[in-house]
Amino acid sequence: MRKIGAVIFPDFEMLDLFGPLQMFSMHRDAFEILTVAETRAEVKSSGGPKVVPDYSIADPIRYDILLVPGGKGTRSARHNEVLLSWLNKAAAQAELVTSVCTGSLLLASAGILHGRRATTNKRAFDWVVDHSPAGINWQPEARWIEDRNILTSSGVSAGMDMSLAVIERTLGPKAAKDAALWAEYTPHKDADFDPFSLEGQTI
Amino acid sequence: MRKIGAVIFPDFEMLDLFGPLQMFSMHRDAFEILTVAETRAEVKSSGGPKVVPDYSIADPIRYDILLVPGGKGTRSARHNEVLLSWLNKAAAQAELVTSVCTGSLLLASAGILHGRRATTNKRAFDWVVDHSPAGINWQPEARWIEDRNILTSSGVSAGMDMSLAVIERTLGPKAAKDAALWAEYTPHKDADFDPFSLEGQTI
Repeated sequence: MRKIGAVIFPDFEMLDLFGPLQMFSMHRDAFEILTVAETRAEVKSSGGPKVVPDYSIADPIRYDILLVPGGKGTRSARHNEVLLSWLNKAAAQAELVTSVCTGSLLLASAGILHGRRATTNKRAFDWVVDHSPAGINWQPEARWIEDRNILTSSGVSAGMDMSLAVIERTLGPKAAKDAALWAEYTPHKDADFDPFSLEGQTI
Repeated sequence: MRKIGAVIFPDFEMLDLFGPLQMFSMHRDAFEILTVAETRAEVKSSGGPKVVPDYSIADPIRYDILLVPGGKGTRSARHNEVLLSWLNKAAAQAELVTSVCTGSLLLASAGILHGRRATTNKRAFDWVVDHSPAGINWQPEARWIEDRNILTSSGVSAGMDMSLAVIERTLGPKAAKDAALWAEYTPHKDADFDPFSLEGQTI
């Protein structure tokens, strides 16, 4: 049973978080979903709905998989040294570290992406790169990027595809296929396919 | 500005709710997202995360669009006469009534679907039909169904496609296309296309 630490902060993006969590929840015998925030106070998403975290960062939980969403709240969270310091320590203890959309800027700001390949939302790409520390190999065209134990995905819906890659890595391809099937989700299975990149918007 | 009443109850399915809400939230000048539950106490989703409702059903809010998710909690909610009675009244006042997955069983149980065409999750299809009142024209193969002002969708992810149809109806096709683009979501645009129906699973 792997503990998933779903990190929330004010103005996080709903689907960045709940898309991947839905896929993980399809295997409830394998994943325990826990939301974690700076404090245990309720956290309002950028869309409006409010989540009560299961834990605060002060609780001594070791998460096997970290999930960091993006959203307009990353503009403020990237300056939150208390949260970033915890994120750095939690990432060092985790088997897998994942982010969706501009969540990768929080990983970058926490010093977790140094020397790694990573991606983010293509509409926020320049902003993320400009505000990240040097030494990160940002990829402008990718649905998601896997660099050893760190998976960063493109915007919003891309997190669902990335989470299926996590399920495939941890539980095998049938488990990933089942999760998508049960969720009636047609996944993008190719990490390099990015119809939403600035270079190649096709829809 | 349309008020969206996102109805939550214990063990609702996360993506049923947050997928559509994400799409609506892409047009925050047009839609106000409000969660509503039987009481204002926090509501735990079937996946684990807990939501604090903005309103209870006792609050005299008129919602323009109702969104009813499914999930294993529908097994209990379909017997909740207080909730169903409110749902019936709220639906009568709404411009559009929508459901995702087994949320359509709650619409059926509340007497809202009589004489209508409707659909639901295909894995729960027989269960939903068997537990619904007579007089509903259940469709076994559809991504979503629009019968005048009522839209019911298939399982989980199908809610995102249905919500884009709602955006198209209310704000026009460009608004729906933009919402999908900003969410980096590749929608199923054909309501009749259902690769997850029991007749034709293709993935």
